[in-house]
Amino acid sequence: MSEEKKIPYKIYLSENEIPKKWYNVRSDMKNKPAPLINPGTHEPMGFDDLRPVFCDELIKQELDNDTAYFDIPAEIVDFYKMYRPSPLVRAYCLEKALDTPARIYYKFEGNNTSGSHKLNSAIAQAYYAKKQGLKGITTETGAGQWGTALSMACAYFGLDLKVFMVKVSYEQKPFRREVMRTYGASVTPSPSMETQIGKKINAEHPGTTGSLGCAISEAVEVATTNEGYRYVLGSVLNQVLLHQSIIGLETKAALDKYDIVPDMIIGCAGGGSNLGGLISPFMGEKLRGEKDYRIIAVEPASCPSFTRGKYAYDFCDTGMVCPLAKMYTLGSSFIPSANHAGGLRYHGMSPVLSQLYADGYMEAVSVEQTSVFEAATQFARTEGILPAPESSHAIRVAIDEALKCKETGEEKNIVFGLTGTGYFDLVAYQKYNDGEMTDFIPTDEDLKKSLDLLPKVD
Amino acid sequence: MSEEKKIPYKIYLSENEIPKKWYNVRSDMKNKPAPLINPGTHEPMGFDDLRPVFCDELIKQELDNDTAYFDIPAEIVDFYKMYRPSPLVRAYCLEKALDTPARIYYKFEGNNTSGSHKLNSAIAQAYYAKKQGLKGITTETGAGQWGTALSMACAYFGLDLKVFMVKVSYEQKPFRREVMRTYGASVTPSPSMETQIGKKINAEHPGTTGSLGCAISEAVEVATTNEGYRYVLGSVLNQVLLHQSIIGLETKAALDKYDIVPDMIIGCAGGGSNLGGLISPFMGEKLRGEKDYRIIAVEPASCPSFTRGKYAYDFCDTGMVCPLAKMYTLGSSFIPSANHAGGLRYHGMSPVLSQLYADGYMEAVSVEQTSVFEAATQFARTEGILPAPESSHAIRVAIDEALKCKETGEEKNIVFGLTGTGYFDLVAYQKYNDGEMTDFIPTDEDLKKSLDLLPKVD
Repeated sequence: MSEEKKIPYKIYLSENEIPKKWYNVRSDMKNKPAPLINPGTHEPMGFDDLRPVFCDELIKQELDNDTAYFDIPAEIVDFYKMYRPSPLVRAYCLEKALDTPARIYYKFEGNNTSGSHKLNSAIAQAYYAKKQGLKGITTETGAGQWGTALSMACAYFGLDLKVFMVKVSYEQKPFRREVMRTYGASVTPSPSMETQIGKKINAEHPGTTGSLGCAISEAVEVATTNEGYRYVLGSVLNQVLLHQSIIGLETKAALDKYDIVPDMIIGCAGGGSNLGGLISPFMGEKLRGEKDYRIIAVEPASCPSFTRGKYAYDFCDTGMVCPLAKMYTLGSSFIPSANHAGGLRYHGMSPVLSQLYADGYMEAVSVEQTSVFEAATQFARTEGILPAPESSHAIRVAIDEALKCKETGEEKNIVFGLTGTGYFDLVAYQKYNDGEMTDFIPTDEDLKKSLDLLPKVD
Repeated sequence: MSEEKKIPYKIYLSENEIPKKWYNVRSDMKNKPAPLINPGTHEPMGFDDLRPVFCDELIKQELDNDTAYFDIPAEIVDFYKMYRPSPLVRAYCLEKALDTPARIYYKFEGNNTSGSHKLNSAIAQAYYAKKQGLKGITTETGAGQWGTALSMACAYFGLDLKVFMVKVSYEQKPFRREVMRTYGASVTPSPSMETQIGKKINAEHPGTTGSLGCAISEAVEVATTNEGYRYVLGSVLNQVLLHQSIIGLETKAALDKYDIVPDMIIGCAGGGSNLGGLISPFMGEKLRGEKDYRIIAVEPASCPSFTRGKYAYDFCDTGMVCPLAKMYTLGSSFIPSANHAGGLRYHGMSPVLSQLYADGYMEAVSVEQTSVFEAATQFARTEGILPAPESSHAIRVAIDEALKCKETGEEKNIVFGLTGTGYFDLVAYQKYNDGEMTDFIPTDEDLKKSLDLLPKVD
């Protein structure tokens, strides 16, 4: 108890302790993640194949499975200093409310205007685009978290940004759109009349409110048909996990400072950017056989890629214009129900995490959204922070594990990732507060339908 | 330059450096602020007069003009540890964008779910209510910032909270309402049918969308007619400035750490809670003749209490049920235009700040909202944080002062208060982004009308 007393509520690293290198977990994997392949030829995509779409330096990071550490350019570190290091928080108040002997820590990535960890990769991708002398970049966004992060990054480097925002979100969730515009981004509802694919979709489906797949297709078209533009993506890709390793590296440095060894590390998993970043250095130790940790991915029961999906090659987008990736997937035609954790409504999963899961280095659980919001509300009332629905998936499992410790009396160290804040998710909280939230679990038949449509790859 | 290099982007105090005492600036004032007086008898209100409405310990703080320091109870310090110390940020990126030799620092109070400094006093007021054995407290809220802070504080201490929210905000700005509900507060649109005054107003003005004055009256009625309840208020009062002194004390400790002496301290002024808190220790030095600083209050041109108001006794509420306070006021019947900085739309001003301004210890300037949003946007794009419209008043003047330094070549140290974030103010940002924002400046005739109605007090 007296030893515990020394641990502050928030462990802050100093500015000088911000990691100077990203860690590439692929370097320690015996079984490397499968390469992206061309959807027509099924050949692995190389540097030249990807150049029309992505920035050069980012492709190198994407394809490099061997280099363990990448220097973080000084310009990016300077930007990180505006909102990093992020605190590792000891959840004293939550522990007390749960009456658990477990010690709960969370890495809080929400203290920046984008409201999430997405900014860690956005600033890196904007930097490399600027360095390459590009005029601008394009991307898609659903609810707007990634688009917001990227608009902040592009404002910083004076880079043009064109965001295709799923039309239904553009109209019904205008606030994140306005944040993006405030940072100078141009935001277009998708499908638009500005691209060939947009015109085609509008003609075929008059009045459509769009989809992420369509928005990706439009963003890629604009990037590849305009001189000086490239396309960027906020999750799933290997490069994104590399950038997000800053989360895990800071977490480990903070824990090491107080000689805390986690028993388990818990993160929510949509495309895998947060989870992959958080666990990277710990997974590295595990892969090298130096340490053992339980590593737990939490996904919504409505979109259970790990727990009910198939490990296979599939399209990353529903529009089927992107390369194929080998990953745990529900099928690119799977349409998840209107779960309120928009950031976890993705049919696939990071190829890196998929390989690690297939090799038994990780566990995965799925949870239902009413129990997620119950955990979110308990967390808000005790720890003060209103969590994002995505992050609250990790909270749910952290609380469950802490309650198990109460049963057994074990003083386990539980670490989880609190990826962001829920300030733009209050329609969901309202539903929960009004007792009108329901759970959606796809039937086996639903899943079979989309899994049967997976592309055939030998 | 090399000396400057040592100053980090964010100066964080350690948890142990959170101040253990609040500082009462009244103790160093030769001319004490005028007392609250009874609206009927014009007699000063004493402890017993205020007991039916306010918590005992808070009344003591309200009336004490002599005690210099008040111990902060350990329970409140523990809560402060969840979101304090707040960072003092060196605005390196803004300085660079402005190409100014000035050094700009801001104390950022927005990194908590209430999104502002209001939480500093909310937790104190909730604590003393709990300590007194009360069941609950009541309050009013306009846009919801204060109500949100109080709901977090009451959740922490397990105290019932009844918030009367101006009906038009309740209906048109549902998000802050849902945050309050998530923290367990009951939120009632005002005027309601739950109070005598509410019924009366609804009968007299069918379909009214309410006002802050009406919400105050309802909250006071519920507090005074229900066993175990008291009423609390988030600004204007002396006790609130005392609690908010934590802002200034931390700011001064952070500056002292790097031997930085501010040339000027700038804060936005609505009721005065943030400005009063920020400047308290600096004003103390000034009052004791130890140091000299320029201290600048910034108010909206649409609601210019300091710059165009009168220093006189007036009602604190438009419903005229509260005691009279001597302050700079535009008259309690003054209805400010629909300026987007809801927190600055107040006809009066803290009696403490009013006395200091009358005695020449402070300056005041008023600024127009389009120029405020211009500054806000520039700040967001360079410093990353999306500022609240209220806070952006201080940003406007900080930028103006930094640009003057560019003219003169002076390396002044500019410190301002960044009270909060603008995540719930995106309707205002949208207006600005669309070029549809206008300025409102009351005519002399407008002001004369409400000032002529000031109560006659000798």
